[in-house]
Amino acid sequence: MDNFNFYSPTEFVFGRDRAEETGRYVNKHGGTKVLIHYGGGSAVKSGLIDIVKKSLGDADIAYCELGGVKPNPRDTLVYKGIELCRKEGVDFILAVGGGSVIDSSKAIALGVPYDGDFWDFYSGKTPEKALPVGTVLTIAAAGSEGSGNSIITKEDGLLKRGARNDILRPRFSIMDPALTQTLPAYQTACGATDIMAHVFERYFTNTREVEITDRLCEAVLLTMIKETPRVIADPDNYDARANIMWAGMVAHNNICGVGRQQDWNSHGLEHELSALYDVTHGAGLAVIMPAWMEYVHDHNVLRFCQMATRVFGCRMYFEDPESTALEGIRRFRSFLHSIGMPINFEELGAKEEDIPKLVEKLGIGEGTRAGFMELNAEDVAGIYRIAAHASLQGMEE
Amino acid sequence: MDNFNFYSPTEFVFGRDRAEETGRYVNKHGGTKVLIHYGGGSAVKSGLIDIVKKSLGDADIAYCELGGVKPNPRDTLVYKGIELCRKEGVDFILAVGGGSVIDSSKAIALGVPYDGDFWDFYSGKTPEKALPVGTVLTIAAAGSEGSGNSIITKEDGLLKRGARNDILRPRFSIMDPALTQTLPAYQTACGATDIMAHVFERYFTNTREVEITDRLCEAVLLTMIKETPRVIADPDNYDARANIMWAGMVAHNNICGVGRQQDWNSHGLEHELSALYDVTHGAGLAVIMPAWMEYVHDHNVLRFCQMATRVFGCRMYFEDPESTALEGIRRFRSFLHSIGMPINFEELGAKEEDIPKLVEKLGIGEGTRAGFMELNAEDVAGIYRIAAHASLQGMEE
Repeated sequence: MDNFNFYSPTEFVFGRDRAEETGRYVNKHGGTKVLIHYGGGSAVKSGLIDIVKKSLGDADIAYCELGGVKPNPRDTLVYKGIELCRKEGVDFILAVGGGSVIDSSKAIALGVPYDGDFWDFYSGKTPEKALPVGTVLTIAAAGSEGSGNSIITKEDGLLKRGARNDILRPRFSIMDPALTQTLPAYQTACGATDIMAHVFERYFTNTREVEITDRLCEAVLLTMIKETPRVIADPDNYDARANIMWAGMVAHNNICGVGRQQDWNSHGLEHELSALYDVTHGAGLAVIMPAWMEYVHDHNVLRFCQMATRVFGCRMYFEDPESTALEGIRRFRSFLHSIGMPINFEELGAKEEDIPKLVEKLGIGEGTRAGFMELNAEDVAGIYRIAAHASLQGMEE
Repeated sequence: MDNFNFYSPTEFVFGRDRAEETGRYVNKHGGTKVLIHYGGGSAVKSGLIDIVKKSLGDADIAYCELGGVKPNPRDTLVYKGIELCRKEGVDFILAVGGGSVIDSSKAIALGVPYDGDFWDFYSGKTPEKALPVGTVLTIAAAGSEGSGNSIITKEDGLLKRGARNDILRPRFSIMDPALTQTLPAYQTACGATDIMAHVFERYFTNTREVEITDRLCEAVLLTMIKETPRVIADPDNYDARANIMWAGMVAHNNICGVGRQQDWNSHGLEHELSALYDVTHGAGLAVIMPAWMEYVHDHNVLRFCQMATRVFGCRMYFEDPESTALEGIRRFRSFLHSIGMPINFEELGAKEEDIPKLVEKLGIGEGTRAGFMELNAEDVAGIYRIAAHASLQGMEE
């Protein structure tokens, strides 16, 4: 196990009707003038924004608002938000929505107290301060409610880049599983895929002797395999929603990932897909992740056997470990398909002829991307090609 | 799943040689005048206290010190600590040691800013403020480095009582697994037993639909079953120590226990044993926990089958679930015995004729103790009697 720091000072406020307590938690965490940041109409139509406003009003907290965050949130709205916050003297950003809204809120929080361009922090600069952020979560997916991560897309050139720092962790996150019950099945499944990907990006590591984090990763994956089909079949299943929502936080606040090298190449490769085609992140991951697994599995066959046996219940064939490893990957792809996810470029709406463009935008050049297996441009093209042509052929179930 | 709040704002600083950074973290978390609180001679002899003092000195942080904390820490030393802190103007308590030292530190932290008797908070009063506490952990066991819990024994009458509040969570905890390598095998095994008990007290619940926390609990238990025999066989196994140390934190910061009714009757029954005989908490738990399981298993046989199959790898006998449930309990007791733990009163040094006294000190009277199964005085006596006579007879392995 490697040395690490783990600092997750977010207060999680979980359960039914907790959004009514928003004002109390803004107050507790020092906010006096709030920007309510949200996405499209659903948070308004559902009445959630009104509940939040009433709660802020009851706590005598002033607010202004900025809606319109889209999936794969854009820098253009972040600039608007920064300007608005400065004009209005905002000292607390309240994200009401899913990962995109929270990521956009974190970007605004970074930009307000900074003299330069907030994009600097998405180009490698380490932030030193940020306004505090609180969240009222409406989608279990990105884990942004408990993470120090934020990903923004630059409109000009569709560059998708991330910032990561503990100062970006929300001060509080209100998580009411009932708020996710109105999500369409497709969005629910995209979120579930994202959650599983956050775990797999940590699970595939070259660091040895990390049993506790391996087991924690597997705990989240096993939960997702049990609960996701239940919410797809019955969107109103509060308890299944609740298990997924807490799993989504655990998957990405890094308690499963400390002390080990992580990968993140599937996320990297997916970001180019969602930037180019504006597809949902989870759907892109469903196509990329099993393809990445197929391409890299012989880097450490026994680790894939561990996944296959512990997570997907495969039998271990000791005379032919590779068959067990590949069976695990097939079951993962089959699971994704069963919850309605695309599994190849055609189903996603991507084009094989764009592969050179996707590879180029990753900017690897003559170099490599670090991770479980180091990838050069040719490797990346190989993964995209597997993703382009993937099928369920040869699946056991 | 029940509604819950989860707030664990401790900064964990994990890995080799991290104690050298103590001063930096005291500084970061606002301490200017520190009480170094520790136990017997081992922290001094090992040179750890010197490393901590040097680090504080390098960071220009003044300190005073108070050693002498014993297992099952006493109120008498807490009073001394409170007096010393007031006299010296201490604003930060630094615990260097295991759970007893940390618990004693938390008690001092509660007492210093309080006008009344600190024992009030161990008699049900809710604390409103406490000095900040930091820890340098030397034993993986109590989980106090990441919890808001503290347990103190009142010298007069040997009453063992707890306080619990998020304000008692340490600001930072330095966790160097190498510091635990000098622990004798018996203490290591006691610590491992305590860690497993913290999980089981959460695992056995009447709350339904808690798959994510069930799986997280199982992740910790599976890790302990793998790693504990390895450190007993090879005390210098850093990686196994590291997995146990992080598991010990995860077991008790409550991330495994949120949203569900918990039990804690095994801890309650054990506290009377360690108060009366001054035995190590983990050893007492090794005797009580499987006895409690035997007594209550038919309250929910299938939950015990889940433990037996998922944690102890038992086969499920669908025609006779109880046999699977009991086999799981037998395997647990067998595991405890294999790591050198006592499994009955004789091995622990307790006496069957004291059972009425133990029951009386629990103070149930005509009432009951809440939990997985509600227990009256007769039930408790029944559990103690099983514990008194337990053996490995009938064990499969």
